[in-house]
Amino acid sequence: MAEPSRILIKGGKVVNEDCSVISDVYIENGKIVEVGPNLQIPAGVRVINATDKLVIPGGIDTHTHMELAFMGTKAVDDFHIGTKVKKEMETLAKEKGVNSFKMFMAYKDVFMLQDSELYAAFAQCKEIGAIAQVHAENGDLIAEGAKKMLSMGIRGPEGHELCRPEEVEAEATQRAITIAHAVNCPLYVVHVMSKSAAKVVADARRDGRVVFGEPIAAGLGTDGTHYWHKDWAHAAGFVMGPPLRPDPSTPAYLMDLLANDDLSVTGTDNCTFSVCQKALGKDDFTKIPNGVNGVEDRMSVIWERGVHSGKMDENRFVAVTSSNAAKIFNFYPQKGRIAKNSDADVVVWDPNLTRRISAKTHHQAVDYNIFEGMECHGIPIVTISRGKVVYEDRQFHVSPGQGKFVHRGPFSEFVYKRIRQRDQVGRPAAVIRKPYEGKVISV
Amino acid sequence: MAEPSRILIKGGKVVNEDCSVISDVYIENGKIVEVGPNLQIPAGVRVINATDKLVIPGGIDTHTHMELAFMGTKAVDDFHIGTKVKKEMETLAKEKGVNSFKMFMAYKDVFMLQDSELYAAFAQCKEIGAIAQVHAENGDLIAEGAKKMLSMGIRGPEGHELCRPEEVEAEATQRAITIAHAVNCPLYVVHVMSKSAAKVVADARRDGRVVFGEPIAAGLGTDGTHYWHKDWAHAAGFVMGPPLRPDPSTPAYLMDLLANDDLSVTGTDNCTFSVCQKALGKDDFTKIPNGVNGVEDRMSVIWERGVHSGKMDENRFVAVTSSNAAKIFNFYPQKGRIAKNSDADVVVWDPNLTRRISAKTHHQAVDYNIFEGMECHGIPIVTISRGKVVYEDRQFHVSPGQGKFVHRGPFSEFVYKRIRQRDQVGRPAAVIRKPYEGKVISV
Amino acid sequence: MAEPSRILIKGGKVVNEDCSVISDVYIENGKIVEVGPNLQIPAGVRVINATDKLVIPGGIDTHTHMELAFMGTKAVDDFHIGTKVKKEMETLAKEKGVNSFKMFMAYKDVFMLQDSELYAAFAQCKEIGAIAQVHAENGDLIAEGAKKMLSMGIRGPEGHELCRPEEVEAEATQRAITIAHAVNCPLYVVHVMSKSAAKVVADARRDGRVVFGEPIAAGLGTDGTHYWHKDWAHAAGFVMGPPLRPDPSTPAYLMDLLANDDLSVTGTDNCTFSVCQKALGKDDFTKIPNGVNGVEDRMSVIWERGVHSGKMDENRFVAVTSSNAAKIFNFYPQKGRIAKNSDADVVVWDPNLTRRISAKTHHQAVDYNIFEGMECHGIPIVTISRGKVVYEDRQFHVSPGQGKFVHRGPFSEFVYKRIRQRDQVGRPAAVIRKPYEGKVISV
Amino acid sequence: MAEPSRILIKGGKVVNEDCSVISDVYIENGKIVEVGPNLQIPAGVRVINATDKLVIPGGIDTHTHMELAFMGTKAVDDFHIGTKVKKEMETLAKEKGVNSFKMFMAYKDVFMLQDSELYAAFAQCKEIGAIAQVHAENGDLIAEGAKKMLSMGIRGPEGHELCRPEEVEAEATQRAITIAHAVNCPLYVVHVMSKSAAKVVADARRDGRVVFGEPIAAGLGTDGTHYWHKDWAHAAGFVMGPPLRPDPSTPAYLMDLLANDDLSVTGTDNCTFSVCQKALGKDDFTKIPNGVNGVEDRMSVIWERGVHSGKMDENRFVAVTSSNAAKIFNFYPQKGRIAKNSDADVVVWDPNLTRRISAKTHHQAVDYNIFEGMECHGIPIVTISRGKVVYEDRQFHVSPGQGKFVHRGPFSEFVYKRIRQRDQVGRPAAVIRKPYEGKVISV
Repeated sequence: MAEPSRILIKGGKVVNEDCSVISDVYIENGKIVEVGPNLQIPAGVRVINATDKLVIPGGIDTHTHMELAFMGTKAVDDFHIGTKVKKEMETLAKEKGVNSFKMFMAYKDVFMLQDSELYAAFAQCKEIGAIAQVHAENGDLIAEGAKKMLSMGIRGPEGHELCRPEEVEAEATQRAITIAHAVNCPLYVVHVMSKSAAKVVADARRDGRVVFGEPIAAGLGTDGTHYWHKDWAHAAGFVMGPPLRPDPSTPAYLMDLLANDDLSVTGTDNCTFSVCQKALGKDDFTKIPNGVNGVEDRMSVIWERGVHSGKMDENRFVAVTSSNAAKIFNFYPQKGRIAKNSDADVVVWDPNLTRRISAKTHHQAVDYNIFEGMECHGIPIVTISRGKVVYEDRQFHVSPGQGKFVHRGPFSEFVYKRIRQRDQVGRPAAVIRKPYEGKVISV
Repeated sequence: MAEPSRILIKGGKVVNEDCSVISDVYIENGKIVEVGPNLQIPAGVRVINATDKLVIPGGIDTHTHMELAFMGTKAVDDFHIGTKVKKEMETLAKEKGVNSFKMFMAYKDVFMLQDSELYAAFAQCKEIGAIAQVHAENGDLIAEGAKKMLSMGIRGPEGHELCRPEEVEAEATQRAITIAHAVNCPLYVVHVMSKSAAKVVADARRDGRVVFGEPIAAGLGTDGTHYWHKDWAHAAGFVMGPPLRPDPSTPAYLMDLLANDDLSVTGTDNCTFSVCQKALGKDDFTKIPNGVNGVEDRMSVIWERGVHSGKMDENRFVAVTSSNAAKIFNFYPQKGRIAKNSDADVVVWDPNLTRRISAKTHHQAVDYNIFEGMECHGIPIVTISRGKVVYEDRQFHVSPGQGKFVHRGPFSEFVYKRIRQRDQVGRPAAVIRKPYEGKVISV
Repeated sequence: MAEPSRILIKGGKVVNEDCSVISDVYIENGKIVEVGPNLQIPAGVRVINATDKLVIPGGIDTHTHMELAFMGTKAVDDFHIGTKVKKEMETLAKEKGVNSFKMFMAYKDVFMLQDSELYAAFAQCKEIGAIAQVHAENGDLIAEGAKKMLSMGIRGPEGHELCRPEEVEAEATQRAITIAHAVNCPLYVVHVMSKSAAKVVADARRDGRVVFGEPIAAGLGTDGTHYWHKDWAHAAGFVMGPPLRPDPSTPAYLMDLLANDDLSVTGTDNCTFSVCQKALGKDDFTKIPNGVNGVEDRMSVIWERGVHSGKMDENRFVAVTSSNAAKIFNFYPQKGRIAKNSDADVVVWDPNLTRRISAKTHHQAVDYNIFEGMECHGIPIVTISRGKVVYEDRQFHVSPGQGKFVHRGPFSEFVYKRIRQRDQVGRPAAVIRKPYEGKVISV
Repeated sequence: MAEPSRILIKGGKVVNEDCSVISDVYIENGKIVEVGPNLQIPAGVRVINATDKLVIPGGIDTHTHMELAFMGTKAVDDFHIGTKVKKEMETLAKEKGVNSFKMFMAYKDVFMLQDSELYAAFAQCKEIGAIAQVHAENGDLIAEGAKKMLSMGIRGPEGHELCRPEEVEAEATQRAITIAHAVNCPLYVVHVMSKSAAKVVADARRDGRVVFGEPIAAGLGTDGTHYWHKDWAHAAGFVMGPPLRPDPSTPAYLMDLLANDDLSVTGTDNCTFSVCQKALGKDDFTKIPNGVNGVEDRMSVIWERGVHSGKMDENRFVAVTSSNAAKIFNFYPQKGRIAKNSDADVVVWDPNLTRRISAKTHHQAVDYNIFEGMECHGIPIVTISRGKVVYEDRQFHVSPGQGKFVHRGPFSEFVYKRIRQRDQVGRPAAVIRKPYEGKVISV
């Protein structure tokens, strides 16, 4: 665009992860130029009145499968590692700005890695300073479970959960963490869906493991009782892997852990299929395409269940929707913070407005919404992406290709600082303390 | 022997797992014929005075690798399953009275089973009503860890523990339990050596899993700080797998769990090698033969650290050294209880005498003792095996081949009653409670 | 009665806590005279055919407030200690055969003891060898909570739970255990009603505390969502203290812990009030008389939710309904076991029959039943109390005053053996291990 | 001072809690005026070269009993509440800028509050927006324990710990949290000294409680085995309440929790007595003055055991030594952050230098040091307090009275935002979920 885009967001409460302050925010050419009270700005600048509104960093969806990121959302791409690609990984990391790779413990005979392959992949990630992401479910048990369900005549969507109960997820999560620790490699567990898997992550962090858990909007906002819904299409709409859990206290538990930094960031794993597409698995749940919506409603669901409920405050909301992801994936404070010199990804948020989520009004193409009917306090008023208004007056103003891949360097400090130090000083003293005299160990 | 062996144990306190009573015990032809106060016995019977002594069921070592069982100890043999042997397992169980099979998750490229193989082996065990035993360590991580230690120049016995820290054991334990639960198969975890693995077992039991954990005398009586001992021979003498743990609070923790029925039975994994044999690994810890002594001192160590310390009472002592093993392996109350019609495996135990364990005085051929110097309250005075005195006046009276294999039927009630009921009523209601109407599930 | 009562129970499966065996049971003059297969019995004996039935020890309700015990149930009386009664406690214990005393942490300004008073009462219990029982709820918090609810206009039965959420129970449980441990006094926690309080007990046992937790039939069979029932009378019928919990997963959790010996025995806290009596609190929940039914249905509820569900087997059922109570309160094996010389308290149990619990058919005077509508597998066919048939053909045959107080000696071995040993050997070595040289401690 | 103090810290790595950036820091008149690369500064400014050094916010000792704060340390005063002082508390909060009050559960008959008094005090704190601090130990148990030890003839410093084992601390911590939650009042637990108490805090936070735990330098850097030291003076030097714990894995555990934000801030509880003063308790440990040093070495000990060990990174170090305290006590970002407009409390820290702690070289008057001999990586080079250099070249430049009380407003957002929201929306939905229809509750 020819003319420079200059915007003044006036009188809002600027919310960063550490505190909130009433301030103006001045934006020029895609960057935040100044943050402070009563900024004096030259004429010709577009002014957005944010009085009584919150001004928050654009959300970073750590986990989506869409090409177009909208609503202040940046996609953190993941590159699936199906086989050893050692050289290619290095190239991607060094030259292409890809600093995370995703490994699967599920999807037997397709993507699933054996423990020794995971070990090697983690070791490679560490060497190049990448984030090792893992889809943690025991693929062998899922395969056996699915066979068993089908043999028992269970063919509906409920079979999807029954063949892979939460301990299948918890077990794999524990195993991945153990392997990563053996390598002293940081680990990022995508879509933590169950209480038991979340507890595994939380306990590991308490033990000092460098591990990050990512719950997703679906898991925070709804549950797996829907798989037993008598309307097949309704039930099938919730099919994803790992599945939502039938224990109805799961979402509140995950939110408590997210509030307490036992879990770190939020994604959506957004991957939507229409009812027609889902119908491929009408007579066999193993054929239902896996995926749910979420990207559009992520911020609202987390605000409603997290902030409005009193579980977290607005600052923690910013941390889990934006800042922590930016830190982990190594573009903080360029992103994830409203501060001088940061990218102008900003959402003006009205915490007092409410809306009701519905497939009738959402902006996604898919014909149902797993959060159907949920009332949400807190809605975005204006969304600015790299200095341009992309959402306003309940309308999107995005042109195709407007999303931009952000080059990310390896060895994120937030993730790797402790790792490197541990490599230097050896295994924590507590573990090998006070051995017999005469030997010094540094492992 | 021509003459029938008839023995009256007089005036002792008969200790069973449920209570203790002052009673006489009359034995004839290898069986207990009567238990009661002031028994009137015909002339010609040998009388053993047990006043102020305890009369306890002979210990059952759930886990030893000796051919000759002594000191009232019966060996529970295990048959290693290295590959799928489905047919052979069935034959062993049905025709040979073998009702337990041991699977390895460690020893990569030798015995180690993959998860899908474990699943199949567990399924087979369940079908034939056997006890699935598992050596729970992550073999891949051990292999990688050993490589790493050697590459760092760590070649001494401490490398044995450093290459397989306790989380390697805990992870495999969790995995085995998860797989067994998927099959609804009971599980027996041999040689639980670490706090974290023991906690995995204990938590699983609290969740209702049919799982039994077996700590061994070595783990209850000493710890892994010895691997750092400056005398190589001393350190090497403690090498076994899984290793003893350097955390010195481990033995007391394992004993607490054993006292509380979080762990169920005790073994020794007795498998002794002389200092010369151990020296095979002088320059490479991976070549040190794995094994420690224990069978002779098991009862004393458990009494000292369990009963004398006040952690358990004499009845629980009987449960963990004898009755529980008899129940699990399906020869209770033939063994494991002093009662009319039971086998005459009896130990007369003096809780007030003390002795000091030492290689100088022990009866085993090996030239060191991992419990060297431990003072033990409580020692056996007389040991009777199937009606014959085999130990008395600190002397063994055993002729080779006197051990006898006990035929054990499958489907031990103690182990399988709940399993069968669960198969009938389906997945616990709590897990799939209150699904949407219209569907009835029994998984 | 003039003629001696002689009964042969023929062909049943005799179930004790350690195993089950097909046996006859011969009863004479209130005692079990013989247990064995194919007993030859003189003529004139009444024969009860128990083929395909279970023959189990009569249940011992550890916690009821009725004067008449029926259905094979013996009441274990508790004497409330409202003030220091040191001398009287000693007299009761030594001369009257009372060996347990109940202390209250709730009911402020009425029964509630301060911590220092609890300490003194526990110390006195220990000195005389009694079981210290405790009603564990924080009385101060309940008093404040009730004030708060009423001030907010919440006057219905739901206020009863809302003013004393489960952490009020868990806190007091933790405190009581801590105080008892300071005294090295065994502790018995009556009516454990919540997951968090139960976990406190379970964790304490794992740490080696001599503590016993008693869930009751109400807590194992129903939950506190009923307090929100729109029919006031329905809701009020469930009011008791501590309250049932609104978390619907509570009963299954308590049952899991009971199955695993984290909780030890079951009671009912039976104390029934009619709807009219409950109506005293129509406008103020604090005035609703506290109490629910349970004594009649206890065995059925525990069988249904415990045994039929597959959580425990029939032997554990006997342990938690009978044997453990007998051990704790020091009349085992006189009671709690079907064995030669034991009291003839026997129930013939048909595990295959089913019934539906209802106020319309129950034998209690009260006009509702908190288990209304529950289908139960497993029902008693015949109940024998001290050698007399008291229940048969769905009819009770009890004359008033037939219950008999059982004199119980102090210092139950099951409870006090470890306590005494610990007093002798001092604080567990683990806690004060390896202090600096030169000092020997035994605390 | 007449001339304005202007300082430029050049070329250092500015470390805030969220990230680290190479920047200059320009200070004028006690404030930070600018932070950025290559600042152009007028002549006459003092320049401190910080190349290869870290520039961190001055530490805030949350818990000291000194009048003079030094080494960039600000004292957060606490006012002890011995009795209900409702009116006075309000005055202090509103007019005097005191926003925290400390309550004692220990020190029976002196400071100790009963539960109902705690409830009232917490309620009052909440009403005026103050932070309720609590010394959590069960005073009754300590009093009884001390009597018992003395009666057993234990009069040395070890008796100090033996009379108040860690469960005495954990119990009170649990109770305080429960009471605070009943009031929905935030809670701050001072000097968390044991693993079990720390776990109580950590678990409460995971459950969503607004509670903050403060370990202190002594607890993070040494342990209670010293109480058994054969030199009385040595042992007595470590006496404080709650005591250091004899479990040697305690410091590493506390540090893990501090690294993971299960514990929030660090203090010292600095309160030093000379050996002569300590000698008051030569024959009776209850008379030993309670208190240890710590304030001078706090930063070094935490760096050594926290950052150098690899448990936390430099950013977390800033959070726990400075930023979190500033947030809790409501003067963030005025303090606790190096940013434009913040107070110029800055430490230039060299992470590569090492020193050995010793009473011979420390700056405190007391004649021993509990960290004697500890080698510390990381030492302060220059300390600036409100714009003035107060420490440099290993010398302090402080004049008496230079410390300044910082007026702190009530209702810290960091603490009270969630509290207020919860008051508005009622008890978390999870607790009272899905009650029967027809009643709406907001408690």
